[in-house]
Amino acid sequence: MMAKKILIFGSTGSIGKSALDVAWADKKNFSVLGLCANSDTAALLEQVKKYNPKYVCIVDEQSALKIKSCLPKGVVLFSGLSGLDEFSSIKADISVMAISGIACLRPLYRNIEYVKHIALANKEAVVAAGDLIFNKAKKFSTKILPVDSEINSLYQLLEGEKQCAQLYLTASGGALYEYSPAQLKKVTAAQVLAHPTWKMGKRITVDSATLVNKAFEVIETNRFFGIDYDDIDVVVHRQSYVHAILRRQDGTFFMCVYPPDMKMPIAHAMYHPHTAKINNVPDAFDKNLLFTFEPLNMAQFPGFSVVLDAAKKGGNYLAAINACDEVAVEAFLSGKICFMDIVKILEYVYQRLPCKKVVSVEDILYWDNRARQEAVKYLEQ
Amino acid sequence: MMAKKILIFGSTGSIGKSALDVAWADKKNFSVLGLCANSDTAALLEQVKKYNPKYVCIVDEQSALKIKSCLPKGVVLFSGLSGLDEFSSIKADISVMAISGIACLRPLYRNIEYVKHIALANKEAVVAAGDLIFNKAKKFSTKILPVDSEINSLYQLLEGEKQCAQLYLTASGGALYEYSPAQLKKVTAAQVLAHPTWKMGKRITVDSATLVNKAFEVIETNRFFGIDYDDIDVVVHRQSYVHAILRRQDGTFFMCVYPPDMKMPIAHAMYHPHTAKINNVPDAFDKNLLFTFEPLNMAQFPGFSVVLDAAKKGGNYLAAINACDEVAVEAFLSGKICFMDIVKILEYVYQRLPCKKVVSVEDILYWDNRARQEAVKYLEQ
Repeated sequence: MMAKKILIFGSTGSIGKSALDVAWADKKNFSVLGLCANSDTAALLEQVKKYNPKYVCIVDEQSALKIKSCLPKGVVLFSGLSGLDEFSSIKADISVMAISGIACLRPLYRNIEYVKHIALANKEAVVAAGDLIFNKAKKFSTKILPVDSEINSLYQLLEGEKQCAQLYLTASGGALYEYSPAQLKKVTAAQVLAHPTWKMGKRITVDSATLVNKAFEVIETNRFFGIDYDDIDVVVHRQSYVHAILRRQDGTFFMCVYPPDMKMPIAHAMYHPHTAKINNVPDAFDKNLLFTFEPLNMAQFPGFSVVLDAAKKGGNYLAAINACDEVAVEAFLSGKICFMDIVKILEYVYQRLPCKKVVSVEDILYWDNRARQEAVKYLEQ
Repeated sequence: MMAKKILIFGSTGSIGKSALDVAWADKKNFSVLGLCANSDTAALLEQVKKYNPKYVCIVDEQSALKIKSCLPKGVVLFSGLSGLDEFSSIKADISVMAISGIACLRPLYRNIEYVKHIALANKEAVVAAGDLIFNKAKKFSTKILPVDSEINSLYQLLEGEKQCAQLYLTASGGALYEYSPAQLKKVTAAQVLAHPTWKMGKRITVDSATLVNKAFEVIETNRFFGIDYDDIDVVVHRQSYVHAILRRQDGTFFMCVYPPDMKMPIAHAMYHPHTAKINNVPDAFDKNLLFTFEPLNMAQFPGFSVVLDAAKKGGNYLAAINACDEVAVEAFLSGKICFMDIVKILEYVYQRLPCKKVVSVEDILYWDNRARQEAVKYLEQ
């Protein structure tokens, strides 16, 4: 069996690194064909030495100039957005898409034509442009595997071909789930960033605390599997061991469970349809465990409903709400607004924009940009 | 679609009644062809009126004489062991085997030739004669569905075709799980019979408290699925919502979950391979839930290891340990011995018997009888 050639988009981020670990631990199965990063040249050069890829892409042109002379002979370097387009057109067996933010949309959309197996760690592109992405994937018979642990777990449960009646995403509740409304008004960025179970990037950690991240996952579920919003529920499960639950029509529940470690869904998405080989997997049930489940307190976290209301209207609102949330979270992290203002900005922006159809990546990026402008306008008031 | 013709063995017991409820709630799918009970003529007559079966079997001959004139015209009555043999040779679409104790073995073994879909609620026959039963089922292409909730849940998990690395049966721990060794010496039958989560017959409730029942389920798992004893674990889960857990080779766990209600596995086994239709199935996750998991404390409940040690030797020991346990439990319930003596009898009997191969139902019944005699001898000392 030939090793599968892999492209890693966002190789210097935490998901990209984990994906490289998975590939490196099983060289019979995987060989690294290309690495792509935004601007972290030091980390990328290390990776190039270790994984010996044929192609390298640095999106930031200044960083690309810096790295050029340091690359081993024969390595092909791409840079800038046009370079990213070229890199996204390389034929490979598997792509791991771990670029963060809406910047992932363009390379993802292009890559669907060239690589038939994509492990997709990016959430924003699916939220903003799910229809476009999955329609194109269908057209090119490209398989997109979700890396997000909840969605990945739903994928696994649905593959069991159970007669699904309801899907449940679990939510850890983030860092602030037990805070009172009075406390929530005064929380600092440091408090929000202390996530109880997952180590993740800053934006997703804040989105976990507002429950906006969970609303995004409900949207992902709807996009990935074509499941009605009414058939998707959220259950608060503080321990993050149970990632997703499927209720079959006869009332039996199936749960997908593993300790909170992103290596698990990354490896699943890379190995699919084969069973992942993961070293040192712990036996969770050799010690005492406690799982709690509680209904989501939506009143306390209005961001959840605000995002889903926008999502159900569809079209450009999906792109807008994602863009606006990114601006709002940055403003909170830099101390410009307080925690409860994040949702106010979301509400404000989505109420000011007309609801429009979107038919292209350019449409999505236009509304992404419009929403950012509106959000900035609100912040300047 | 024609309604499927059903035979119910043990129709007046709790599993038999639940199976009839399932059939009655879906008359398009099921029609009751035959009912079989041991001696409860009053309950059986009620059932005959309601379900209108063509065949009736009363194993106890005296009871059969009583009921004969009360049966509606045209109903065929069988009685005695030879009548049970005839009843077991009726061709039907589905049999529900809910006769308790080793008495189920003979009709089950015969019925495998005539009915291709058997929902098997009896544990003792599988423990004592698993090889014979499953070899014959294979020969006649008869599908045997386990009704025992843990084994039924494993069946469902294994059907997902996961690459199974380990199976876990959950144990509620029974009524005495938090008792100290000193308390265990003095427990009364009433204390043992107060099972925290399941309403069941007396013997299985006592077997739950000694953990002998869980050892029997480990044996069932080995027999039903051909899984090595080393790959079967027991996890204490006091709430009885999670019935079984499968660990895939990559370390992901899948759990089968429903509130403790035997209607669920009974309906699954009757409807298989179709999804069961069950009315008023509750949504478990609309309220707060707490699940605990802890490793089994084997030192406190030596019956678990004693039974499994015997089981691993195989042959006649499996029949013997089951028979001996039945005698011991009866002795405990009638106040002849104390709780901790149950295991002592098991140990005593299995150490006194030679280990022999068994090749027929007659062999099994011989060793069943021998073990009972040895157990009674011990009790008389």
